[in-house]
Amino acid sequence: MNKGSISMAVIRRLPKYHRCLSDMIDKGIERISSKELSETIGFSASQIRQDFNNFGKFGQQGYGYNVEDLHSAISNIIGLQHTYRLIVLGAGNLGEALVNFGFEKLGFQVDALFDNNTEKIGKIVHGVEVLDVNILETYMSKHPVDIAVITTPVKVAQQIADRVVISGARSIWNFAPVDLVVPEDVIVENVHLVDNLMTLAYLLNS
Amino acid sequence: MNKGSISMAVIRRLPKYHRCLSDMIDKGIERISSKELSETIGFSASQIRQDFNNFGKFGQQGYGYNVEDLHSAISNIIGLQHTYRLIVLGAGNLGEALVNFGFEKLGFQVDALFDNNTEKIGKIVHGVEVLDVNILETYMSKHPVDIAVITTPVKVAQQIADRVVISGARSIWNFAPVDLVVPEDVIVENVHLVDNLMTLAYLLNS
Repeated sequence: MNKGSISMAVIRRLPKYHRCLSDMIDKGIERISSKELSETIGFSASQIRQDFNNFGKFGQQGYGYNVEDLHSAISNIIGLQHTYRLIVLGAGNLGEALVNFGFEKLGFQVDALFDNNTEKIGKIVHGVEVLDVNILETYMSKHPVDIAVITTPVKVAQQIADRVVISGARSIWNFAPVDLVVPEDVIVENVHLVDNLMTLAYLLNS
Repeated sequence: MNKGSISMAVIRRLPKYHRCLSDMIDKGIERISSKELSETIGFSASQIRQDFNNFGKFGQQGYGYNVEDLHSAISNIIGLQHTYRLIVLGAGNLGEALVNFGFEKLGFQVDALFDNNTEKIGKIVHGVEVLDVNILETYMSKHPVDIAVITTPVKVAQQIADRVVISGARSIWNFAPVDLVVPEDVIVENVHLVDNLMTLAYLLNS
């Protein structure tokens, strides 16, 4: 399997499969037909078959899917068998909210928060220490960081992105309302909250 | 112009045009060629022309665009000439972060937070009062709500969604990791943060 050849549209549907199957496990559902899966998740049966075909063979014609097996297969495709080390840049409400969201249950472990506010430095937020952003490079030279989460004010976001990239961050989860410029091999996932509000505004008027 | 016929892909590019043009205004740029706009925003010139053609005529062949005029036109297309009334369900870190994000500058005004925690009820968060979720229906019968923002724990998110929908909310901005079921005429914009992390996990391994 050449994962690099899978389209982003397919990749972005994987978390929804994962969420849907997790719900079914919670509800005690053991087996599901492709028709039932299609109705629950809202993708056509043919879409689901095509998506799964990218990753090998799941289920058996006429027998449907074993929910646990499919959930586990999707988890492995996403890469949830690994643990990911995160740092959060910016220890404001949003940074604190992200530390407290429960992502560690899925293997996304926040190791440190960083801030430049001396009143916040040294504070423990849900078990995670707020470190001085001045020691960011030193920290990163000693600790692997898979995902650097940027929740800083917009005016310093690019500068912080440059610093984590130089220090070896492989990916950035960006909440600042700015389109960051990074080298091609650094992955950026943006959450532009304002864009959501603008989309809602547009749809409310149409 | 029939706004209903515009594709979601075009609609979701509008905020990026808006952000890009706001940056240009901040930098004092008055006029921009379609080529420069294309390079800055990262969409092809033909894509940009097609997008704008959905909404009428902008700029003049060979003269480029007046940045202020274009910004103002895009703002109006999105609907930013109006003010939108928001309530935030859940006064945790995420709810507080959203109240403090600065959305009011664009016309998205949070009027109230709601929580069921008696220690939070009555608190003022960045000028916005935390109200008892028990009075949600009474509040909504007296105050118009354009966007109900759900930042509650996942287990109560659907129930809260049902309550705001029955009380007349026209749209929901949902941060709970669940796919809400709502009537067809209610608009839901999801921010599934876990999905972003899973996408990053996948891409880090591919």
